[in-house]
Amino acid sequence: MPTYKITLAYDGTDYIGWQRQATGTSIQGLLEDALREFGDGDIAVSGAGRTDAGVHALAQVASFTLVRDLPTDAVVRALNAKLPEAVRVTSAAVVPASFHARFDARAKTYRYRLWNDEVLPPFERRYAWHVPGALDLDAMRRAATLIEGEHDFAAFQSAGSDVATSVRRVATSRIAECDPHSSLLLYEVTADGFLRHMVRAIVGSLVEIGRGRQPPEWIARVVASRDRSAAGRTAPALGLFLISVDYGGARPAEP
Amino acid sequence: MPTYKITLAYDGTDYIGWQRQATGTSIQGLLEDALREFGDGDIAVSGAGRTDAGVHALAQVASFTLVRDLPTDAVVRALNAKLPEAVRVTSAAVVPASFHARFDARAKTYRYRLWNDEVLPPFERRYAWHVPGALDLDAMRRAATLIEGEHDFAAFQSAGSDVATSVRRVATSRIAECDPHSSLLLYEVTADGFLRHMVRAIVGSLVEIGRGRQPPEWIARVVASRDRSAAGRTAPALGLFLISVDYGGARPAEP
Repeated sequence: MPTYKITLAYDGTDYIGWQRQATGTSIQGLLEDALREFGDGDIAVSGAGRTDAGVHALAQVASFTLVRDLPTDAVVRALNAKLPEAVRVTSAAVVPASFHARFDARAKTYRYRLWNDEVLPPFERRYAWHVPGALDLDAMRRAATLIEGEHDFAAFQSAGSDVATSVRRVATSRIAECDPHSSLLLYEVTADGFLRHMVRAIVGSLVEIGRGRQPPEWIARVVASRDRSAAGRTAPALGLFLISVDYGGARPAEP
Repeated sequence: MPTYKITLAYDGTDYIGWQRQATGTSIQGLLEDALREFGDGDIAVSGAGRTDAGVHALAQVASFTLVRDLPTDAVVRALNAKLPEAVRVTSAAVVPASFHARFDARAKTYRYRLWNDEVLPPFERRYAWHVPGALDLDAMRRAATLIEGEHDFAAFQSAGSDVATSVRRVATSRIAECDPHSSLLLYEVTADGFLRHMVRAIVGSLVEIGRGRQPPEWIARVVASRDRSAAGRTAPALGLFLISVDYGGARPAEP
């Protein structure tokens, strides 16, 4: 009964998100359906990050246990043969039976892509939030770092969450250095866990600051308020990518 | 009656190509429909490259004449407001009434994208031909340069063309230098004109050479044969991008 850890990339545009639900096509559901064709009966798949509808992944991690002992490259090939091209298994490894993709994750890193120019290139329309107009990048950079550390992030949590605590430790939060001639703006955040819509609410707040509607320090006051209505709007799902999951020991993969 | 030259980027996935036809949605048709809403009646649009179904553009050039004198930024904004997000006008300029996007083009450059790895990333599935397995890049590089110069390219022309001559002058033909750690392989070709499916037939032949089924010199023999059945298969449309059109004077835009 080997347990496998797989790494996945997916274009979330056409899916309801990671988690299987009563209706709609989920990434978890696609994997479980593909594994059923292996002939070992129903196989439950756990994922590291429960990405929302429309959110993408460069390196999501999932785990499951098979009855048969299959070589890892056969697992990769057989899953990719059954999955749609929008979902690809990029690697597989055999791990101890105790491994759980979600509970064992020490940290996850998300990247949010924004396009800051008048015209959004057609090839970015599903993968970047179009934010035209001047943005104060220095203010956004300063604000981004202000949420690093352990905080109660209730102000950045959407309704409908059922988590025990909204305290999370953000290891790094920054506007990535990009080519200054590029219109692409990247926000990257690593934390031990994320609340529902947390990254998107942070990005919506950073854009408020970038537009000069709020000073950088405002984001610290929003955190302190623990009031969702204090934060900026939730940025659209299409700009968000789960880019790595860290299980300790090895460094997170460079996507 | 000002004449406008516009530059366009488009994701060709869902379209029948540049040229308006009896059925299906074309890029030319989308532009002409958008211009009709300007209230100047039917406006004919000429395009520099008649890209096929599924072929993309980073910088296609088109021209048309309006009755009213509109500022160029108003033309860009009004067209983009009416066009789908998959088609974007990136710039506009007023040009002499004699300008014709197709007949005045001195050279066009196409790029073909190939993904040379076992797994095709989901974000490349509409924009790169998936060619797994070992490829001899040095052989492909040498073969690519062998088609530079003026030749009769009848061997790389699909049936159904009605051009007066199949002689074209290829200024440069090369496998672009890429990050050696990347699986992305780029082929770029600049010529004074292209025959139907010419770039895709060249790429199909280069892949035959990369796979070791033919030596690099074979491509010169294919050119000399002027026989379509001598060349490799036509590579799929989805990897092909029209990246610049040169009208002399100014350098082609870096896409």
